[in-house]
Amino acid sequence: MNTKVVIHAGPLAASADAPFCVDGVGAILIFEGVVRRIEEGRDLQSLNYQAYEPMATRQLQRLADELLTRYCLLGIHVEHSVGVVPVGAVSFRLRIASRHRKEGIAAMDEFIDRMKQDVPLWKSANWADVPVHS
Amino acid sequence: MNTKVVIHAGPLAASADAPFCVDGVGAILIFEGVVRRIEEGRDLQSLNYQAYEPMATRQLQRLADELLTRYCLLGIHVEHSVGVVPVGAVSFRLRIASRHRKEGIAAMDEFIDRMKQDVPLWKSANWADVPVHS
Repeated sequence: MNTKVVIHAGPLAASADAPFCVDGVGAILIFEGVVRRIEEGRDLQSLNYQAYEPMATRQLQRLADELLTRYCLLGIHVEHSVGVVPVGAVSFRLRIASRHRKEGIAAMDEFIDRMKQDVPLWKSANWADVPVHS
Repeated sequence: MNTKVVIHAGPLAASADAPFCVDGVGAILIFEGVVRRIEEGRDLQSLNYQAYEPMATRQLQRLADELLTRYCLLGIHVEHSVGVVPVGAVSFRLRIASRHRKEGIAAMDEFIDRMKQDVPLWKSANWADVPVHS
């Protein structure tokens, strides 16, 4: 299974490092998106992610399949949170296995740009100075 | 300690995921260089890395410090193997923490280009069809 998409409830666990079971790998790239403490100059407590499923999963899968083919990659694994993710925790992880570095980096950058543009996943802020259930 | 350089004997262990202890992290990028099975169309058994130490360590440290400042990064950790690293194992790992994705990706790409060009680290092939101690 060269592409895999999983949507998790809550923050992502530290990577299990499940290896890419393919031959010819020369580069592994991992991107983790972390919830930043400060957004728009204001203290954040957490982000609340929502997805329009199963469309989000389907579009992430389609994007992974397209980039795998176009960049001749060996594997793409995608994990994304839904629900509350506190500051400092990981809400998104993209793992790419490729023969060489350059195509892996290009695919990583394009994947994230297009995910932000096209996939029905959105977030709202829980500010530190406002009770979550106000 | 925002930059760290370690040279290990043999293949790198799976990432210990020692967190970056800094505030403001929004993106973590990890690059792992893996020994590929096929080089120049020929079956490889392992690569043997050699470094001219301590110059290699010093130059990696200097490169990390320079890119940390120039790209306004929050952390760079570098690990590189010396000695024999078999096919499929990791010989190099670069971890970058940044506020946003774009500067992290640019720094990762530049770090690896300049490491290959400037740092006295080199490798020789142990081919699968030739005994290592021939």
